[in-house]
Amino acid sequence: MTSEGEFGLIARLAPFLSAAGEDLVVGHGDDAAVLEVGGRGVCIAVDVLVDDVHFRRDVSSLEDVGWKAVAVNCSDLAAMGAAPTVAVVGLCRPAGMPAADVESLYRGMDAACRRWGLRLVGGDTVDAGALAVSVTVLGDVDPDRAVRRGGARPGDVLVVVGQLGAPAAALAQVRAGVPPDGPLLALHRRPEAHVAAGRALADAGATAMIDVSDGLGADLGHVCTASGVGAVVDAAALPVAAGVAEAAAALGRDPLDFVCGGGDDYALLAAMPPASVDAAVAAGATVVGRVVDPPASPVLSLPDGSRRDLSGLGWDHYRKDAS
Amino acid sequence: MTSEGEFGLIARLAPFLSAAGEDLVVGHGDDAAVLEVGGRGVCIAVDVLVDDVHFRRDVSSLEDVGWKAVAVNCSDLAAMGAAPTVAVVGLCRPAGMPAADVESLYRGMDAACRRWGLRLVGGDTVDAGALAVSVTVLGDVDPDRAVRRGGARPGDVLVVVGQLGAPAAALAQVRAGVPPDGPLLALHRRPEAHVAAGRALADAGATAMIDVSDGLGADLGHVCTASGVGAVVDAAALPVAAGVAEAAAALGRDPLDFVCGGGDDYALLAAMPPASVDAAVAAGATVVGRVVDPPASPVLSLPDGSRRDLSGLGWDHYRKDAS
Repeated sequence: MTSEGEFGLIARLAPFLSAAGEDLVVGHGDDAAVLEVGGRGVCIAVDVLVDDVHFRRDVSSLEDVGWKAVAVNCSDLAAMGAAPTVAVVGLCRPAGMPAADVESLYRGMDAACRRWGLRLVGGDTVDAGALAVSVTVLGDVDPDRAVRRGGARPGDVLVVVGQLGAPAAALAQVRAGVPPDGPLLALHRRPEAHVAAGRALADAGATAMIDVSDGLGADLGHVCTASGVGAVVDAAALPVAAGVAEAAAALGRDPLDFVCGGGDDYALLAAMPPASVDAAVAAGATVVGRVVDPPASPVLSLPDGSRRDLSGLGWDHYRKDAS
Repeated sequence: MTSEGEFGLIARLAPFLSAAGEDLVVGHGDDAAVLEVGGRGVCIAVDVLVDDVHFRRDVSSLEDVGWKAVAVNCSDLAAMGAAPTVAVVGLCRPAGMPAADVESLYRGMDAACRRWGLRLVGGDTVDAGALAVSVTVLGDVDPDRAVRRGGARPGDVLVVVGQLGAPAAALAQVRAGVPPDGPLLALHRRPEAHVAAGRALADAGATAMIDVSDGLGADLGHVCTASGVGAVVDAAALPVAAGVAEAAAALGRDPLDFVCGGGDDYALLAAMPPASVDAAVAAGATVVGRVVDPPASPVLSLPDGSRRDLSGLGWDHYRKDAS
């Protein structure tokens, strides 16, 4: 990130990226794009994982990295209500990286592909200075049912699928030199993508959906901005991963920093019309708040009645250790 | 590349990559995979370009790099007979790379997308140690008409679309410290993808097709291996780019090294049934040889009646300068 910041860059690049139109059902700027082909929606997501930025070799095995490179894309597709079908990988292989290590990385991708029922159909492995894994995943979705970020309406109910805070808590333990809690670390190494739940929420009529990769506060902010709404989240209702509160207490940290600002959770956050909430809960979702008018940054409502600004909390990656 | 070599790596990774089956019309190991969606074929190719391996910043502008990252994938799709539709990009951005430079790279991708009628629909830009551009392009193809590498039959006629030798000749000039010839260098910086010709050859009944990225010898070798055939190429018939012979003479090199072993040409090489040759020529192809029995490495037939082994010639990239 330069001093210009991410939003400056996004504004510079927007003219070169396509908005929805014709057979492009969803253009750039959502969790994934959707192209209509033969009456179906082909969903496309890409994510890059870089050594020492998105993972550390002393924390994650290469199989973990391969798993995660597929999982984070499946999570993007889940947030559109799509089912992953195939993946391709562009792999930057540093000089001296043994073929057995490349195989470990592929084995992890293969495990994740089996987990979510997609197939790895191609790859390009090139010499490079550092390890980077760029995975593109395609998915299948009913083009009329693809869920974007911008459809939330005042009165909708906010729900979350999955647990929050574990990866950020584990990362904080690693940074503090504390032996990380095993179950917390496992969720950092091998995140789950909530593909079946994403489809169920889409079928139930979700008006907006996003995967929580940057942190609940930042990602809910994306939904509010895209939808032109505000949001209130009930802190006491949030599905916090087991062990996060204890880890925060031991580190002298506020657990809500991990839960709302940590990121890397790959939970799903959706807005549901009130009549659809029961179906969402049946699919495994937890009610966490509501969509309100007027448009504003999302706020967190605490048990003592106070409110906290949820915006400005965001994903913290390894490289920031050095800054 | 480790001492194990590329073929060892490919054998290790093959178990994790999907072969054709069910809705996967073409699996891994071809120029692109093809997935059937709603009766159409969705073609998928990925290529990664790395700074100082696939391009040099003192030779190519960032706009050139962006163009090339899209073009090489369009060339892969052209070799399947597909039309590019959309692209996504995973970009590794080194620390300190200004946003204006990222914009230049996107401007080059945009120019190539306009050239071949596709749309850039998403991207992930991440912090990294070195510049690397991983582009995935999707294309549309009649699933019954997707042309693979393995269908060439003895008696088929070999044709080439595009010109050979220019990028390798320009690269040799750069390496020798000779001011590179402008038109030769232009073809290294901004290769053309022969998308319309690829579709025309597919429609005319091409039995096998590949894009010439590793060098004519190496890529014809891929077709021979996949098809279980041999091939004889007439050296005098090859479409050599203007200026290659002069550049070779000035460097004291054999022009056939550039033409057959240089790579980076992004020409199309196809096998046509004899009855389809006229249609191929009408689409801009040049007849260069024939497919023969028994299976063997391809050979080059020289004007003096001698023959030269075409296998073992292959793409030479920048990094090999250092070895």
